[in-house]
Amino acid sequence: MDQIGLMRQLCLKTETKIVLVVLDGLGGLPNDAGKTELETAHVPNLDALASQSICGLSDPVLPGITPGSGPGHLALFGYDPLQCMIGRGILEALGIDFDLKPGDVAARGNLCTLDDQGIITDRRAGRVDTEKSRIIASQLDGIEIEGVRVIVEAVKDHRVVVVFRGEGLSDSVTDSDPQRVGLAPQPVFAGNDDSTKMARIANVFLTQASKILAGHHPANGLLLRGFSRMPHFPGFKDVYKLDACAIASYPMYRGLAKVVGMTVVKTGATLDDEIKTLKENFNKYDFFFLHVKATDAAGEDGDFGRKVSVLEDFDRRLPLIIGLKPDVMVVTGDHSTPATLGGHGWHAVPVVVNGKFCRPDTVSAFNETACISGGLGHIPACHIMPLAMANALKLEKYGA
Amino acid sequence: MDQIGLMRQLCLKTETKIVLVVLDGLGGLPNDAGKTELETAHVPNLDALASQSICGLSDPVLPGITPGSGPGHLALFGYDPLQCMIGRGILEALGIDFDLKPGDVAARGNLCTLDDQGIITDRRAGRVDTEKSRIIASQLDGIEIEGVRVIVEAVKDHRVVVVFRGEGLSDSVTDSDPQRVGLAPQPVFAGNDDSTKMARIANVFLTQASKILAGHHPANGLLLRGFSRMPHFPGFKDVYKLDACAIASYPMYRGLAKVVGMTVVKTGATLDDEIKTLKENFNKYDFFFLHVKATDAAGEDGDFGRKVSVLEDFDRRLPLIIGLKPDVMVVTGDHSTPATLGGHGWHAVPVVVNGKFCRPDTVSAFNETACISGGLGHIPACHIMPLAMANALKLEKYGA
Repeated sequence: MDQIGLMRQLCLKTETKIVLVVLDGLGGLPNDAGKTELETAHVPNLDALASQSICGLSDPVLPGITPGSGPGHLALFGYDPLQCMIGRGILEALGIDFDLKPGDVAARGNLCTLDDQGIITDRRAGRVDTEKSRIIASQLDGIEIEGVRVIVEAVKDHRVVVVFRGEGLSDSVTDSDPQRVGLAPQPVFAGNDDSTKMARIANVFLTQASKILAGHHPANGLLLRGFSRMPHFPGFKDVYKLDACAIASYPMYRGLAKVVGMTVVKTGATLDDEIKTLKENFNKYDFFFLHVKATDAAGEDGDFGRKVSVLEDFDRRLPLIIGLKPDVMVVTGDHSTPATLGGHGWHAVPVVVNGKFCRPDTVSAFNETACISGGLGHIPACHIMPLAMANALKLEKYGA
Repeated sequence: MDQIGLMRQLCLKTETKIVLVVLDGLGGLPNDAGKTELETAHVPNLDALASQSICGLSDPVLPGITPGSGPGHLALFGYDPLQCMIGRGILEALGIDFDLKPGDVAARGNLCTLDDQGIITDRRAGRVDTEKSRIIASQLDGIEIEGVRVIVEAVKDHRVVVVFRGEGLSDSVTDSDPQRVGLAPQPVFAGNDDSTKMARIANVFLTQASKILAGHHPANGLLLRGFSRMPHFPGFKDVYKLDACAIASYPMYRGLAKVVGMTVVKTGATLDDEIKTLKENFNKYDFFFLHVKATDAAGEDGDFGRKVSVLEDFDRRLPLIIGLKPDVMVVTGDHSTPATLGGHGWHAVPVVVNGKFCRPDTVSAFNETACISGGLGHIPACHIMPLAMANALKLEKYGA
């Protein structure tokens, strides 16, 4: 029996409430002073929480594996990230509340810059602003090829989503995005006999799109990757018997929450907005996924100081969440995003689990080094959900 | 997806270099003074390396499982040792650069001493010297039975390899070696209907061999075990995109390296020779497996003091390896060989991973007790390769 099957068998509906706070890209690496972002930040409330809780380190996928946001979050939601995979196109579509129909194939699009020879010089078209992307997307939207409608919507900056809707489509096709500058966009190739129609339509669309884009320098090209269909994972309600509420201001994380059947509520862009949303909804649900993007964004930008500030900002607001008195509170990240690396890392992520029955350890600070000695030890991230459920007394005994 | 599949998908070819030093049988047990071999040894360079690195403990197979050299090394190379198995006969054959053909079945042979009743009194024939073994092997070599040619070659001391070459052979047969003194050698039994020919030929060969050996006391018997064929594992180049170089003076480890597709370079018998070989080849490869046998040999002999000396000898030479400036350096063992046990043990093995992006922990000494507090925690040995690859920035992100 896999973990999801076990959860499905053991989970009970109870009155207790769980808050899972995901500080995106939480884990870091030491700066020249030998301290990570979290070790540098003044986070007295997180430290106090750690003192009263059980702590540890988690590996999102496996030691050494750097996860994208999809696997990182699926693991936190208790799904094996090596078994449960979500295509990039679907993630982007879900993140903008796109109403996917059965059979739709979605691809992630990058508006890019091509030179006179058709070579990619900027994969993000100078991070063209969202308003401009919207105008371009509306010009690309609605093309019909062999009865297949191609829907194009802007996401953010240079990112768009392209959805192919019609009969006989497939997601077994290759990317047109070579993911490097200095190369031309690639043709889309069929991965098997059933996907020749999909590949043909994608290529016809890309040819038509390139004519429309020609006048929009620096956004004069379009790269597609991650052709995918909606996956079918057993949902939170089914597996955990939870009425789960997702509070996330950033599209992709709303999308991830939808894939596992959480109710995604409207919220504003700031952490204060998110906490207000949490407060407003606290009586209506028994599980809350609260996503904080700014930690990851600072890490991705290589901005150590800003990541420290974001952590301190969160720490100042932590009492507002604790004040709601959830029965169980978990604070962790979906992966590390060390500022010194300027991107996602493979490094283990601190995790703290607080609840009346959590058996506190000796850890009295919430950071990478202190959590090594935590009572949870070093666990795969997909074990965090069962731990949260157990601490909320939402799990029956396994076996007689 | 299994780990090898994941690696195959994520590994990138880059310029970075990894050195994996395997101190065979590294882990130990405390002596009367309460300290293990590694804790007793003065190893300032290993301690300094630990201080700047991330450390931990690794289980070669599973907690409680004592591995042979095969599983111990396969795990370090990132292969699941419960899935990937190599027969002892194949290992011995590979270790002497024996040119195995498709269909060959190899067995490990021990020259042994039999008493007048044909009972084994010494499984190693007084560790008869290699020169004598060579003479005996040449007398046994070349026997033909039912069109199957039996090739016998000396390995080292009392050890020989016996290769059966011909049609319709199988490796599903039992050992003739009872692995205990006080018993007679056993007949070889077929494990299934397809292996009756193999068993028959092995038994005819053993009967003929016993006549030839009769005059060679104390090497007057031959025991066969580990009948096996060459396994087919995906190789290092295919899985990791590495040009891997193996530096090992002892036959079996060269054989293990060949099975996973490493290039085995010529080297001398001493650690100094091996380090010289490493230096000479450092520009030609991007992964180096450097094997140190003497730690295990001392442990096997129950010689605590010699194991301490070997560790100190290695420590004095460690700066020569570090001086080559590999991007990532790993020092660990394939299993424990505690001198107090006088053989391989199941005990977890210290591991240190050094690299620019390794997130150092608080461990400041390289030994069994200190490594308990390491940032890697307690990991299966097969996770060490992904960690080394990640630290060398040779892995793409998993998922979007």
